[in-house]
Amino acid sequence: MIKKSADRKRDPIPSQAKRVFRGKIFEVWQWPQKMYDGTLHIFERLKRPDTVQVIAVAGDKILVQSQKQPDRKQAFTSLPGGRCNHRENPLVAAKRELREETGYESNDWLLWKQHSPMGKIEWIIFTYLARSCIFKQRPRLDSGEKIKNRLISFKDFLNLAEDKNFFDPQLVITLLRAKHDRRKKAGLYKLLFKKHI
Amino acid sequence: MIKKSADRKRDPIPSQAKRVFRGKIFEVWQWPQKMYDGTLHIFERLKRPDTVQVIAVAGDKILVQSQKQPDRKQAFTSLPGGRCNHRENPLVAAKRELREETGYESNDWLLWKQHSPMGKIEWIIFTYLARSCIFKQRPRLDSGEKIKNRLISFKDFLNLAEDKNFFDPQLVITLLRAKHDRRKKAGLYKLLFKKHI
Repeated sequence: MIKKSADRKRDPIPSQAKRVFRGKIFEVWQWPQKMYDGTLHIFERLKRPDTVQVIAVAGDKILVQSQKQPDRKQAFTSLPGGRCNHRENPLVAAKRELREETGYESNDWLLWKQHSPMGKIEWIIFTYLARSCIFKQRPRLDSGEKIKNRLISFKDFLNLAEDKNFFDPQLVITLLRAKHDRRKKAGLYKLLFKKHI
Repeated sequence: MIKKSADRKRDPIPSQAKRVFRGKIFEVWQWPQKMYDGTLHIFERLKRPDTVQVIAVAGDKILVQSQKQPDRKQAFTSLPGGRCNHRENPLVAAKRELREETGYESNDWLLWKQHSPMGKIEWIIFTYLARSCIFKQRPRLDSGEKIKNRLISFKDFLNLAEDKNFFDPQLVITLLRAKHDRRKKAGLYKLLFKKHI
């Protein structure tokens, strides 16, 4: 059920590349790249842990967050989610982040999209659908999170495309297409709520 | 003429941050960040040179490229543009890139949008309009570029939103909005061609 448009594979870092720096989040990799005139140049790309986000459906509503982080002045709108831990499977990470950040759980998970936002960074954002979510416990936020969760209607979910504090351009594109195409809108509704709009 | 939505400032790297690595393109910066519970964690962000791209209008057409790069298997669709050299003013870089990659020049430049695609990277993409472009000389490509330029109609420009090999989500959002809103479409046409659609 991964959309073709979001499924394109970016070129991986070549096998002869060497890691020249390992930071807290980012690794820097370099390799000698043969150019079109036969000369060699040092090329550079990054790796970072993959991230997950969850479109969590509870009843006829969708969970979204208003989030603050210690190094950012302004609150922003987001979906539940975060970074995968080292070697953590993305689905496991998605379930963990949803539980920790919202207290909701689901038994109905679907990998909806995966996307590499930047050619120069080996990094995938996995977007999962968690349908029929049920509230189980209070959220347990870590020391770098201030999160307010709220449940919004499908209409307000489509209107995230107009939210100036929502910074996921790929989802904005998907929402805009759904807003302006009745069939796409109905398809997205069916996918989220498992019934016809 | 910078659109408000694209003008938001991302938080800068704090002044107490230290550069811990300097690569070919990316610099890595770290600082101790106070968390909401008072503890300190090392936070990390990157810097990279700003980039420019140009919507170049010649007659009633717009210049787009099919581009190959030595480390990428597939050709992709792009606008003329590239990285700013060290301390190079973005407008100067935009004029240089347009001339080098296409051979076109213009006397009518406008900074249309500036955008920071990623919160964790201090990096701006400047999008310029170059109107009334005139072909002056053959392109001079560097050893890491294979570029085919072509002139497309305004309609085909809007349809870049559907091009699976065009990877600028911010421009896709702008084009989608113009496609589905007659006033926005007319405004974009007027801005590019300086006459009514």
